Amino acid sequence: MPVGLPDIPDLKPVTGVRLGAKDSGISNKDKEDLAVIECVSGTSAAVTFTQNRFCAAPVTVAREHLRRGEVRALVINSGNANAGTGAEGIRDAEKTCEMVAQALDVPAVSVLPFSTGVIGQNLPIDRFEQGIAMCADELKEDNWLSAARAIMTTDLVPKGGSRHFLLDDTEIKLTGIAKGSGMIRPNMATMLAFVATDLSIDQALLQHLLEQTVRDTFNQVTVDGDTSTNDACVLLATGCADMARIEEPSDPRVEELKVQLKDLFLELAQSLVRDGEGVTKFVTVGVEGAQTYDDAQSIAFSVAESPLVKTALFASDPNWGRILAAVGRAETTRLDISKVEIWINDTLIVSGGERALDYTEEAGQEAMRPEEIHIRIMLGIGEQSTKVWTTDLSYEYVKINAEYRS
Amino acid sequence: MPVGLPDIPDLKPVTGVRLGAKDSGISNKDKEDLAVIECVSGTSAAVTFTQNRFCAAPVTVAREHLRRGEVRALVINSGNANAGTGAEGIRDAEKTCEMVAQALDVPAVSVLPFSTGVIGQNLPIDRFEQGIAMCADELKEDNWLSAARAIMTTDLVPKGGSRHFLLDDTEIKLTGIAKGSGMIRPNMATMLAFVATDLSIDQALLQHLLEQTVRDTFNQVTVDGDTSTNDACVLLATGCADMARIEEPSDPRVEELKVQLKDLFLELAQSLVRDGEGVTKFVTVGVEGAQTYDDAQSIAFSVAESPLVKTALFASDPNWGRILAAVGRAETTRLDISKVEIWINDTLIVSGGERALDYTEEAGQEAMRPEEIHIRIMLGIGEQSTKVWTTDLSYEYVKINAEYRS
Repeated sequence: MPVGLPDIPDLKPVTGVRLGAKDSGISNKDKEDLAVIECVSGTSAAVTFTQNRFCAAPVTVAREHLRRGEVRALVINSGNANAGTGAEGIRDAEKTCEMVAQALDVPAVSVLPFSTGVIGQNLPIDRFEQGIAMCADELKEDNWLSAARAIMTTDLVPKGGSRHFLLDDTEIKLTGIAKGSGMIRPNMATMLAFVATDLSIDQALLQHLLEQTVRDTFNQVTVDGDTSTNDACVLLATGCADMARIEEPSDPRVEELKVQLKDLFLELAQSLVRDGEGVTKFVTVGVEGAQTYDDAQSIAFSVAESPLVKTALFASDPNWGRILAAVGRAETTRLDISKVEIWINDTLIVSGGERALDYTEEAGQEAMRPEEIHIRIMLGIGEQSTKVWTTDLSYEYVKINAEYRS
Repeated sequence: MPVGLPDIPDLKPVTGVRLGAKDSGISNKDKEDLAVIECVSGTSAAVTFTQNRFCAAPVTVAREHLRRGEVRALVINSGNANAGTGAEGIRDAEKTCEMVAQALDVPAVSVLPFSTGVIGQNLPIDRFEQGIAMCADELKEDNWLSAARAIMTTDLVPKGGSRHFLLDDTEIKLTGIAKGSGMIRPNMATMLAFVATDLSIDQALLQHLLEQTVRDTFNQVTVDGDTSTNDACVLLATGCADMARIEEPSDPRVEELKVQLKDLFLELAQSLVRDGEGVTKFVTVGVEGAQTYDDAQSIAFSVAESPLVKTALFASDPNWGRILAAVGRAETTRLDISKVEIWINDTLIVSGGERALDYTEEAGQEAMRPEEIHIRIMLGIGEQSTKVWTTDLSYEYVKINAEYRS
């Protein structure tokens, strides 16, 4: 079961964006597996893609279409990743765009395709024909939840969130959905996220803000250190709100916008971890007092990705030696173990690089009991800090990943 | 059960080295947990240590003693790592050296201490007093097997090997023991190895040969990507063989020596993997045709440490997409996915960066069935290659690491 993940909230419509989602028989799950998201002409679109060199056909096609001009629609399927499918995969991804183009009367190059699911099988392209037509027939602004379900693979629950906030006197809507629960790791792991707002904003500025926000949110979560072939995060700004367009980074409204974007994106990113494969703990690894940000990051990920730390978390075992060993093996420019202090929630477990004087096993076990664990690592040699979110490593993780596909 | 690991072979005595091992009540296992290894005066000693910045007290003391002069004895305990134990840990490690010094009538600084086991608990130093006396009382050349058992922690079986070979006309003996089964990763992971030979060789040259050999053997195995606090590999050369001392790297006998060292060390290193925690597959990941050795290494470890590849191996699932995704996410200077070819044992599964034309699921499943899996990744863009040895990731791995300590 997901950890500390409330039911998906009400997903508010964003003027200028309409969605349709259907069960088209692409995946073998009894739920929607295909979604079409349409946006009005004039929408600014920003996208970040997987950094895996082995990227799927839809990623290649989406990149190329994005380069060529305006975005008018997204088409997303779950159940099949269309990855490792060569030239035929590219043709299939193009075909899905053409089908959407025909149904919505927009150019094929204005459609971006996204796929998630099993690698190495061709798309069942015949099922797209009818599915896309059905999705296009029922496009509506109030259909985010159905789209959130359509992009799920091993996710146990649909994920999404909404914000509304004032920029000057205009109420702005911001709504997004996300999927992912394994193969989660920085730099666009096995996840898809689609976020839209009715803001009016310059496209290049939107891309810049998206990259900055993704860096601090989706790129700071890790389930298993694996990255996938299909991942993308899309941010659409329809410009339908009644406001003067934001053209420059120096616009005073940009600061508030950054805060709102980060807030929603962090909620979405953390929801991937809370529904991580086999999760029984939601773990925040904070590193403070590092000399450089890179050092802080290196140590945080070394701890968050250590199988030994993760199995200890699963067992609620306050095995602080494993945490300290993971700190010690990180690649850093400077680290003084004798200054390291480690807290688990409110319990000081390591001080001066060794077991804290008044630490007891009982206190450690008590600290490890909750579902939400905050490991705070204070290095005491600088001013830089970071936070990473992760899960424990359970039997269930192995089971899910040994049995997926079978 | 270990994979493809025959019973430990006959461990041949090495003239000049005597061993004693006893169950001293330091670990709670019903086996030897303390060993003393004595070597004759004039022995050249080379050691490589963990690169973890959080290193255990015995590592600090052993480094310091090694710096100060001749090595006459090693004292090794399992069950307690004496790590994260601060100043008291250092004093305890020193005390164990003094006890051995007294029992063997050698200087305390000529004794190197090694510990492996649980982190963060003080050594039960009273048990060493009697234990060391007992070990010292029964020192003999033919006691390697007992020492091999004494250094085991979660290991299921003792590990060791012997070689004898001719250098010019002199028969040389080479015998070693090793422990380790989890937290195994390059750069001296949770492992200890003690190897001795009756060679006569210059100490600096021996250290150089040890480092070179460790790089190609122990540093190429990985179970879970975690490194520990206590690891070390010791190579003793007693000089008891009837031969002219090897003083220079240019000595023609050095080439044969390198071959023999690598052969034994590789057997020991692979035996750690074969007895890896929860292992059901012994996996060789070979990368060929890389532009640089670093690229080959980065890709090999990316595949070997991927939890998704490892769970697929556990399930005997030919999920080649996960292998290709792990190749694609490695940090490399150059990679052309469209040239990548991947074999599992004798089955070509990926060609030109996608599923091989005549590949079938049935053939893939057949290829994944054996206990010994060779994943060959041909990059097709250069001349560099490497090999890494690893395990699958099973329920049992999680169980062992969640329950260890409890």
